[in-house]
Amino acid sequence: MSATENKYAFGMIGLGVMGRSLLLNMADHGFAVAGHDKDTGKVDSLNQEAGDRAAKGFADVKEFIQSLTTPRAIMMLVPAGKIVDAVIEELTPLLEKGDILIDGGNSHFTDTNRRVEELEAKGLHFFGMGVSGGEEGARRGPSMMPGGDKDAYAVMKPIFEAIAAKVNGEPCVTYIGPGASGHFVKMVHNGIEYGIMQVIAETYEILKKGLKLGNDEIGDLFTKWNEGRLKSFLLDITKDIFKYKAPGTDHLLLDDIKDEAKAKGTGKWTSQVAMDLVTPIPTIDTSVSMRDLSKYKSLREKASALYNDPIELKGDKEELLVALEQAFYFTSILTYAQGMHLLTKASEEYKYDLHLGEIAKIWRGGCIIRSEFLNDIYNAYNKDQALPHLLLDSDIQALVAGTLPGIRKVLSATIAAGVAAPGYASALSYFDAFRSERMPSNLTQAQRDYFGAHTYELIGKEGTFHTQWAPAND
Amino acid sequence: MSATENKYAFGMIGLGVMGRSLLLNMADHGFAVAGHDKDTGKVDSLNQEAGDRAAKGFADVKEFIQSLTTPRAIMMLVPAGKIVDAVIEELTPLLEKGDILIDGGNSHFTDTNRRVEELEAKGLHFFGMGVSGGEEGARRGPSMMPGGDKDAYAVMKPIFEAIAAKVNGEPCVTYIGPGASGHFVKMVHNGIEYGIMQVIAETYEILKKGLKLGNDEIGDLFTKWNEGRLKSFLLDITKDIFKYKAPGTDHLLLDDIKDEAKAKGTGKWTSQVAMDLVTPIPTIDTSVSMRDLSKYKSLREKASALYNDPIELKGDKEELLVALEQAFYFTSILTYAQGMHLLTKASEEYKYDLHLGEIAKIWRGGCIIRSEFLNDIYNAYNKDQALPHLLLDSDIQALVAGTLPGIRKVLSATIAAGVAAPGYASALSYFDAFRSERMPSNLTQAQRDYFGAHTYELIGKEGTFHTQWAPAND
Repeated sequence: MSATENKYAFGMIGLGVMGRSLLLNMADHGFAVAGHDKDTGKVDSLNQEAGDRAAKGFADVKEFIQSLTTPRAIMMLVPAGKIVDAVIEELTPLLEKGDILIDGGNSHFTDTNRRVEELEAKGLHFFGMGVSGGEEGARRGPSMMPGGDKDAYAVMKPIFEAIAAKVNGEPCVTYIGPGASGHFVKMVHNGIEYGIMQVIAETYEILKKGLKLGNDEIGDLFTKWNEGRLKSFLLDITKDIFKYKAPGTDHLLLDDIKDEAKAKGTGKWTSQVAMDLVTPIPTIDTSVSMRDLSKYKSLREKASALYNDPIELKGDKEELLVALEQAFYFTSILTYAQGMHLLTKASEEYKYDLHLGEIAKIWRGGCIIRSEFLNDIYNAYNKDQALPHLLLDSDIQALVAGTLPGIRKVLSATIAAGVAAPGYASALSYFDAFRSERMPSNLTQAQRDYFGAHTYELIGKEGTFHTQWAPAND
Repeated sequence: MSATENKYAFGMIGLGVMGRSLLLNMADHGFAVAGHDKDTGKVDSLNQEAGDRAAKGFADVKEFIQSLTTPRAIMMLVPAGKIVDAVIEELTPLLEKGDILIDGGNSHFTDTNRRVEELEAKGLHFFGMGVSGGEEGARRGPSMMPGGDKDAYAVMKPIFEAIAAKVNGEPCVTYIGPGASGHFVKMVHNGIEYGIMQVIAETYEILKKGLKLGNDEIGDLFTKWNEGRLKSFLLDITKDIFKYKAPGTDHLLLDDIKDEAKAKGTGKWTSQVAMDLVTPIPTIDTSVSMRDLSKYKSLREKASALYNDPIELKGDKEELLVALEQAFYFTSILTYAQGMHLLTKASEEYKYDLHLGEIAKIWRGGCIIRSEFLNDIYNAYNKDQALPHLLLDSDIQALVAGTLPGIRKVLSATIAAGVAAPGYASALSYFDAFRSERMPSNLTQAQRDYFGAHTYELIGKEGTFHTQWAPAND
């Protein structure tokens, strides 16, 4: 194929589930697209699925590059880490100045920062873009978070807006901000996703071990919840999971699955970065530590034999179910609020100039954390772009206040009974600390000064002070 | 001074509180020691305090180096990070092969790994050593955690054993293991310290805001607790803090101190590394996030106005105080248990070959987390070096079982009342998840497979599986 035969407007490297689905989505919207993967099986899959669409897979990277109109627009959707660097290294000698390269994977934002610099130096336009929605989202309309080279995004905008999920006719994609902000925001999206998934798992635990409900009843409850204010993609798929029978049996496949939650690391990154940014997101931290705990099966088996107090959840079942709906809503709100607070802090620290209302807006469709409640978040930040914390919005305050009796009731009961609800507990205790005009941290600071001469500050006085606290006779 | 006049057996770089105190401690034990600091004020302080002891401060680094017997033994006690590298860079041209260099600061263990390699290449013996005990510990007997070059430690052992704290006549110092294990263990020590300090702060909060006790009553309770099984250095200094009046007033200095807890980062590192090592330590994570939350004073002030439900802790006061003692003990045990679990995992992962019994043993004196309970930890690991988790020891199990009614009672009450006890809550919910033979993580894994085709594992079957979960009519 000669250079004059270029005919594809967009190229994708990595034809796994996400890459192939995105390409077919683009082709459905009338864009001529090419894909490349070293795995010829994946190339064949694309070509088969493409049918008579203008989508073609190449196993040879040079043929792939030559098939693209210039300046080229190429997205990588490959596993985060060294593979991204390897692809870039192979690719850059084949590219020309002015070409656009997009990293659509879940790269750590610090890697994206580095690559922005490296590729800018080579005259290439590079941007990192978070893509959420899983296979189905990629195929039918994802939510996308592009950050970095704004001019390059402007070139790509028509394609991305065409393929994005739509909410009220508006596409779930917007320019996020400079640098690695797109990947940063996607990372926090995933952190929130970990939190909500933990909340759902704990609710399942309370219903099953606390209220002793059967799977049908649990599924019915999730179905009902998903018709109200709790409506969300994650509840939607959960209700399906509670209907799916293990093939050839009469019981749920869910019951046969090992209780070990894997992770690809984006939740962990969110927690680690939040700690670097001095921003508390304890419900997300808890979701990470509970996935980790799930991996210690043999320890848990031993512990369950040693600490075998039976679980007896006290209280009226119907009242507890009403309270549980409130508790679920409360904990979800708190999880989003913590994530949004992290975005606020990162925006200041990294000068991302994030528009949290716009971010909430594009999360309302296509992505894994889409939910009814994102409309409320959108409204809160739309009203006040400078809102310093979601919980301080008056409409959110009213929602939260209405759920407090429920979360307090459910959590008191689970704690007394011995059902683990660490995410619920982290959200409520964060809330109660957050609403403390005065925390007990003065004591922590006094202790630090006592043993380490780390000094303390005084209310209403400038400066730092140190005291010899020990009694003279010690 | 010529080289033949070398007369000091040990040199210290960095004459801040810790460095000066350690040197004077050594001099008290008959070792001739020299110190160096660029700050001549600190050099003068050492020389004044030294009196007729064989301890001398030098402002000139070359004079300092020349004053030491060879092979030289030099410890750095300077702030972690770039300063350590700068000191090493200045120092190494002045040193000779075979000299011993010790980093006694709170360096991140990954920095220590790097420095071990760099200095080994230069023929120098280097080891990282955690030193705990604050000013008083350094002066009268610290707990020390040396790791790395074992031969170099053997040379230093007499000095360190002489100056260390003693418990039952045994010194609180032992060779920890290879590489950066000394700094790693000290980091986890500090993570546990964060956790225990958080537990004490929450107890203060419950006593003050929940039970409405005055400072005198709170101080009396901490004093009483410190005479029983809860006895610890941190409670000991807390009882003193509850007696210390603001100079010239009749109220506690504590009440004048800002409720903002600072941190130097070792707790944060512990949480971040634990996540990398897939080890849940949620109570330490919570202590980090609560220090972080303490810094958002203006947000908390606004939130306290919006969410102003009064706190009414229900229950009999005397019964709650009995339960609170159990709750405190429970949460302390869980904090140590999480930290020890992290050491177990790190020992496997980094091949540190840690002896947890020995570590508990040297933590019983001199260091900030010394406590009666460390005897129980020591006994547990002494009985079974391969104990995979502290909670699985039968004696510990008996202790924990005795505290469960208390922690459940107190936490149910604080949750209903709205007093924040996030550390207590994290410890109990970790415990209840840990004692779950089956966690609800099968649902998390089913969700991951549903939206991301991440596959799942089945109970009793090899391999991974993927399902098209969505109903056909969706």
